[in-house]
Amino acid sequence: MINKNYANLKESYLFTEIGRRVKAYTQANPDKKVIKMGIGDVTKPLCKAVTDAMNNAVIEMSTKEGFHGYGPEQGYDFLRNAVADYYKNFGVSLKSDEIFISDGAKSDLGNILDLFDKDCNVLVQDPVYPVYVDTNIMDGRKIYYADAVEKNGYLPMPSETCDADIIYICSPNNPCGAAYTRDMLEEWVSYANSRGAVILFDSAYEAFIEDAQVPHSIYEISGAETCAIEFCSLSKTAGFTGTRCGYTIVPEALVRDGFELRKLWLRRQTTKFNGVSYVVQRGAEAVFSAEGQKQIKEQIRYYKNNAAIIASTFDVLGISYTGGVNSPYIWLDCKCDSWEFFDKLLNEIQVVGTPGAGFGKNGEHHFRLTSFSTLENTTEAMERFKKLKL
Amino acid sequence: MINKNYANLKESYLFTEIGRRVKAYTQANPDKKVIKMGIGDVTKPLCKAVTDAMNNAVIEMSTKEGFHGYGPEQGYDFLRNAVADYYKNFGVSLKSDEIFISDGAKSDLGNILDLFDKDCNVLVQDPVYPVYVDTNIMDGRKIYYADAVEKNGYLPMPSETCDADIIYICSPNNPCGAAYTRDMLEEWVSYANSRGAVILFDSAYEAFIEDAQVPHSIYEISGAETCAIEFCSLSKTAGFTGTRCGYTIVPEALVRDGFELRKLWLRRQTTKFNGVSYVVQRGAEAVFSAEGQKQIKEQIRYYKNNAAIIASTFDVLGISYTGGVNSPYIWLDCKCDSWEFFDKLLNEIQVVGTPGAGFGKNGEHHFRLTSFSTLENTTEAMERFKKLKL
Repeated sequence: MINKNYANLKESYLFTEIGRRVKAYTQANPDKKVIKMGIGDVTKPLCKAVTDAMNNAVIEMSTKEGFHGYGPEQGYDFLRNAVADYYKNFGVSLKSDEIFISDGAKSDLGNILDLFDKDCNVLVQDPVYPVYVDTNIMDGRKIYYADAVEKNGYLPMPSETCDADIIYICSPNNPCGAAYTRDMLEEWVSYANSRGAVILFDSAYEAFIEDAQVPHSIYEISGAETCAIEFCSLSKTAGFTGTRCGYTIVPEALVRDGFELRKLWLRRQTTKFNGVSYVVQRGAEAVFSAEGQKQIKEQIRYYKNNAAIIASTFDVLGISYTGGVNSPYIWLDCKCDSWEFFDKLLNEIQVVGTPGAGFGKNGEHHFRLTSFSTLENTTEAMERFKKLKL
Repeated sequence: MINKNYANLKESYLFTEIGRRVKAYTQANPDKKVIKMGIGDVTKPLCKAVTDAMNNAVIEMSTKEGFHGYGPEQGYDFLRNAVADYYKNFGVSLKSDEIFISDGAKSDLGNILDLFDKDCNVLVQDPVYPVYVDTNIMDGRKIYYADAVEKNGYLPMPSETCDADIIYICSPNNPCGAAYTRDMLEEWVSYANSRGAVILFDSAYEAFIEDAQVPHSIYEISGAETCAIEFCSLSKTAGFTGTRCGYTIVPEALVRDGFELRKLWLRRQTTKFNGVSYVVQRGAEAVFSAEGQKQIKEQIRYYKNNAAIIASTFDVLGISYTGGVNSPYIWLDCKCDSWEFFDKLLNEIQVVGTPGAGFGKNGEHHFRLTSFSTLENTTEAMERFKKLKL
């Protein structure tokens, strides 16, 4: 009666275990200031354009005339059109009915699998955002791993040896912080089209891209509209981790086994979802306004400055790493067991990061730091790194 | 590659077709005032306690100190505890970790099926809320129908002839408006326990119950904690149709095939969901405050008064119906093709309702009216009914 695939899930204890060790340390050393650069959560509050819009929406909801009941499951046109306009910045033209407003990329990355057969083969990268793996284990799909390692710059390319139907690409990457260039994504798109595979493209970190060679959207690559679904979120772009809004793009031209996936997803969402809160959608709309864009870009500059401080420190210290340029993450080569390194940082300099082992076998000997802390704490953490005996 | 079960879904055109016919009529008769009593959406704005709480939460989110990032996927304790306290009113004691905050009952009613095997047999009632049927067709499960008809008071009871693993019960019922008494639910609970079936209990309309014999929660029945999952929503309770918040109860004692379903659901939600917006959860918390309860009960009284006006009119006119007492819905026996009756009401008295045929074969010759309109429109609609030649 029960979906037995759940028995195949590994207990995911990564952040629980980090919390346990940090708690034990702080209890034993109440006088020490611990700096947290582990979990990928933001620290800056919502920007004024967003909170003003949300406050106005709440006031609307309190009046007979302004009240909004059930909205369209796929999101209000005012927000879908704002997203379509945003994509024009990348030279990508989308119809509003190819855009689905979500309560975050995580939900849709999991729920999209409803559309696919259980016998599809899945390709993920190792190290990997664990959600890609666990959602497929829940469905009993076979999973292949592409190595993201130093010798390929943490950016694996297509291989003829693996027969994948569903391909996950997260660029800029979590946890590695590496980002695919236009040329590399062209290879992935032609590979997917040639085999009839579908790319699930996670662009949650696109707002951190500064390199002109790195696409913000997979649809900047011609041919992607016949093989890719894109998932994005305002969590890191605009600090929506606790506000919950994102969007999923399913192009009309994406057809498999005679089914238009956009129509299947619309049917899935109208049946199993009731849309995102009106108040939240008004806040999200404000992110794309001129004022909103100005304010969120200021926040992103702040985080990217933290990343630059970490990167330049590691350059001086000769610590090899990826990320920090087009990404809020720095993925460093700690040259030892990643949990040992975690304990070393906690005990010797009271800095908390994320052991790479939590992201897969290739995460071993690696460590993730985020730039989402405050400038003060980031600077202090780097001063402490300089004192660290490596 | 595609989940072929989607090909077995019937196009759901009920509300699209209603919209089409209403639009055609209003274009042909721009002078006529059409009164809508069809879709089950509310008309009253959010109450003050809720909008005050949401406004305060938005202000918090705009400050460094008050900002909330990622919250617990299963919801904040402040809201889970408020729900637990609310259940004490029904003599039901819940642990907060048996309570999962959702973005509405519809999402969780669909997503809960992730936990069950595809070869489970499903029992729904006919007429039925279409989501119960479509979500199982998407998974390829076999569906049995229990007739909800006049001769059983639209409240089918367990039958030995059907071997169901998953049993859907919506009480008070959508669309019939009928509600199970304590004795009747005791029969369903012992039936489910005796066969190891799981009841998915939809209590979305519990706030409309006035009959002391009608339980607000399945857990008022002893033994339900070993066989039932309960889904509730603030959509009809507090006008959250566009604000999106509900809750799902999975008791610790519910175990099947050696799996504790509460743990499976927690794993599903931590993997495929990122929690409900902090601002919305603060609004939901306010629903359960003393002030909030006072304000929403006023709204519910307003809608129930509309229902009473409809019911008393039908009593006078000799139209037989169920609902309107413990439910916002009136389900009337229109003694003819339900789409014909729809056209008759639209053309002769300009009242829009929902043809029963849209809810299943037993919906034929029946018609649903809602009490969610304004007092003025409800009263006027009933005056028009009196002039209707039936």
